[in-house]
Amino acid sequence: MRSTKVILAATAIAAALATGATAKPGDPGREKVVAAIKADHEAAVERLRDWIKLPTIANMGINHREGAEYMRSLVLDAGFQHAKVVPTDGVPGVFATLDAGAKDTLAVYFMYDVKHYEPSEWSSPPLEGRIVDRPGEGKVMIGRGAVNQKGPETAFLSAIRAFKAAGVKLPVNLVFVAEGEEEIASPHFPQVIANPEVRAALEKASGIIIPSAGQSVDGQMTLLLGAKGAVELQLISSGEKWGRGPNKDIHSSLMANVDSPAWHLVKALNTLVAEDGHTPAIDGWFENVKPLTARQKELIAADVAAGNEADDMKVLGIKRWYKEEDYLTANFRLAEQPTVNIQGLVSGYTGPGGKTVLPGRAEAKIDLRLVPDMTKDEAVAKLKAHLAKRGFGDIEVNVSGGYGPTQTDENSLLIKAEQATLADAKIPMTMSARSAGSWPGVVFTGPPLKMAAGQFGGGRGGGAHAPNEWLLIESSNPKVLGFDGQAILYADFLYEVARTAAKAKR
Amino acid sequence: MRSTKVILAATAIAAALATGATAKPGDPGREKVVAAIKADHEAAVERLRDWIKLPTIANMGINHREGAEYMRSLVLDAGFQHAKVVPTDGVPGVFATLDAGAKDTLAVYFMYDVKHYEPSEWSSPPLEGRIVDRPGEGKVMIGRGAVNQKGPETAFLSAIRAFKAAGVKLPVNLVFVAEGEEEIASPHFPQVIANPEVRAALEKASGIIIPSAGQSVDGQMTLLLGAKGAVELQLISSGEKWGRGPNKDIHSSLMANVDSPAWHLVKALNTLVAEDGHTPAIDGWFENVKPLTARQKELIAADVAAGNEADDMKVLGIKRWYKEEDYLTANFRLAEQPTVNIQGLVSGYTGPGGKTVLPGRAEAKIDLRLVPDMTKDEAVAKLKAHLAKRGFGDIEVNVSGGYGPTQTDENSLLIKAEQATLADAKIPMTMSARSAGSWPGVVFTGPPLKMAAGQFGGGRGGGAHAPNEWLLIESSNPKVLGFDGQAILYADFLYEVARTAAKAKR
Repeated sequence: MRSTKVILAATAIAAALATGATAKPGDPGREKVVAAIKADHEAAVERLRDWIKLPTIANMGINHREGAEYMRSLVLDAGFQHAKVVPTDGVPGVFATLDAGAKDTLAVYFMYDVKHYEPSEWSSPPLEGRIVDRPGEGKVMIGRGAVNQKGPETAFLSAIRAFKAAGVKLPVNLVFVAEGEEEIASPHFPQVIANPEVRAALEKASGIIIPSAGQSVDGQMTLLLGAKGAVELQLISSGEKWGRGPNKDIHSSLMANVDSPAWHLVKALNTLVAEDGHTPAIDGWFENVKPLTARQKELIAADVAAGNEADDMKVLGIKRWYKEEDYLTANFRLAEQPTVNIQGLVSGYTGPGGKTVLPGRAEAKIDLRLVPDMTKDEAVAKLKAHLAKRGFGDIEVNVSGGYGPTQTDENSLLIKAEQATLADAKIPMTMSARSAGSWPGVVFTGPPLKMAAGQFGGGRGGGAHAPNEWLLIESSNPKVLGFDGQAILYADFLYEVARTAAKAKR
Repeated sequence: MRSTKVILAATAIAAALATGATAKPGDPGREKVVAAIKADHEAAVERLRDWIKLPTIANMGINHREGAEYMRSLVLDAGFQHAKVVPTDGVPGVFATLDAGAKDTLAVYFMYDVKHYEPSEWSSPPLEGRIVDRPGEGKVMIGRGAVNQKGPETAFLSAIRAFKAAGVKLPVNLVFVAEGEEEIASPHFPQVIANPEVRAALEKASGIIIPSAGQSVDGQMTLLLGAKGAVELQLISSGEKWGRGPNKDIHSSLMANVDSPAWHLVKALNTLVAEDGHTPAIDGWFENVKPLTARQKELIAADVAAGNEADDMKVLGIKRWYKEEDYLTANFRLAEQPTVNIQGLVSGYTGPGGKTVLPGRAEAKIDLRLVPDMTKDEAVAKLKAHLAKRGFGDIEVNVSGGYGPTQTDENSLLIKAEQATLADAKIPMTMSARSAGSWPGVVFTGPPLKMAAGQFGGGRGGGAHAPNEWLLIESSNPKVLGFDGQAILYADFLYEVARTAAKAKR
């Protein structure tokens, strides 16, 4: 989920101000909280390491229940008063509350699942949480989930437990929701939200954040005002469902007089994008696509003006953007265009060389990225209708997860509090009109909750969804927060939410 | 290679004559040879079992050298006087000769490689060669290579060693050539044939056979007069070669402004077959395709008249032929139409569910089946030109093996001797105009050798390229030869080749 964010961050304004949070009048006990965070450093790193040892991988059936129970114990341990596992038809969610007797309530969203990993591709074991030197950055922890999202989440919980340890009253009440299926596009998270107790608690909150390590190498941070929606699905062509071609793999010579489910899939796929192999060509796909607003273009242009096209291309391993567009146009397109992507193709023999089979089954793994005002239901229905109209109605559309796009008002209390927190911490900030990456914010920003929602947090990491995922623990760059700084920023944010809310009421 | 043959055999005339070879005048020592074959039964079965224990799998780097050495030792042990491993740029070949001081020479072709296998799919271990009961058939050996082709080959060698054991002079001299890459379409076998010593030896032979277990469940046998050619290749689309899209897997959200090698491959594949997902649409593909002759259609019609369409469909797991054609038309098409088949598709994430990547590489595993007068070089050149003309010139065409179609004259000495042998053995016989499956017979039937060539042998088996491959060892059906009967039929065939040659010279 984070890789696009990292890219966007890298393109943003690289202002060069020193970081360092200072207490404001009206932040009672802040110094004690900061001291508690620092005193807790070694234990906190150990808690992150322990958590990394227990990977929950939704689509591989790994540690579903265990991950949920562990999540529950982590929030109870941090100071939440009530926490429960919320069963769903898939991996369970977790719900918790912390009533500090404050006037205002903030909600926080966690994911406790991680992407799967191939240990052979890692320089240090993915579940060990080893601390290594990263030149130019400092000491980092290597592990699956380090940045996506156990690391930032551990920093957030460290802030909460520091208030408890320091005997300081939390400035806001907290509502906590977590899921274990973020990496498969949150198929059952709406069930967690629909739980009456969870929903009632969330309705009291003035906004919701997902902790993230959002600083660029220059220390700059980008506040995401929106993100595309994502729908993950598999298109499966099979002789069995088609009623043509074989119901299993047969000898390839039979291609002469038997139909091929693999070719059937290729023909179907071919209709989904235009001849350029890029532009979605599903009937009615652009009907509800809203163009970027002038303000959104302004924000993107500011990002691009500060970005480095050559660096971006190097990171991505590309030589040109789609249609050889210029950097600005390519970034408008990144935010504005819905996509139909092939994540994977699987059919028949997939080993080295060849094998003389005519496969009975072929699968394309697809993800759709949606922009406002597209919805998940609309996208799936249009895809199915498009296929059916062209004689591909037999192809299974197996939706494994997804959600629509999310957008939050830059004038909301949440964004205002985030901006104020960063200003106080002297962390240079830009706003991102819309991330091309996705997170299930629409669960909060859409009906019925319609809350402000966004990723928030300092510090830095990388390698989400890739080998050698890392989180900065001790920063060698004064502009970028290490682990303790990340936790302190969350503590300051809690103060700021209360302050901003108080201002708004005046 | 055999599965199509099995299907064709099943469709052929099911005449019901008792089998049982009888000596002809002028077959000196035949009874001693038959006795020696029977006395050798247990040892021969053990030799087959031992051979199965050593699988050579060309495309997995398994037992290349070991398989060749073992093959060499098997033929020396059977009575060949000279045998050598013939190095190639791939898996080695084997060449051997047996000079019996006879007037005529027969050549024999072996493959010592096998298809790979997934032990978990087998009911008994694929390398154990366990003997089990097969209802309606008798005692069979289960093992990878049992029928394709170590079993029939072992029966052939048992015949040869029986002449030696019985002290009976072989009626013909023998030339032996073997390869270890048949299952990957024989990419280096032409190098074996091009060896001057091998070529000179083969030029003395009046024909060449590949041992096979060719009887149907009714005991009927089909003589293959021809077979389609096959070219195996992988089409690889990559950001690296394309110069567009990423040179590795990147986050799928980038689909908005980055090109996709997977979509590029889909668009390229889409041009290779017509809208029906079946008919080859490569430019000029049918230019050299010769229609079936009246005689070929007559042979196919005879097969079809004796076949059972419902059984064929059940075996294949299909409900209809391409275009809902009738059984006869579908069988004409099977023999006549060149094909472009997708063996496999591989790109990006191939595990369960999805993963948010935009893959840097996509591969389609393709096989082309060729009919006279198409050639391998022509097919590959036309495919490349077709792709290049449509803007897909960057897609790698990685040819991993292949050869053109083969055809043998039904009036050749070899086919005449085969027919006479079967008539004497009272095995009902039909001729197949052309197998849709392939074998590298063109190496022999094409220039420069232009020999008659064909698969030949009695007995029965199944499961080539599938789990639980088997060969009939002790037949419970008097119409079908068990292992000893298979060896005896080869002995009789050697007598018959000498006799037919003598007749031709008169």
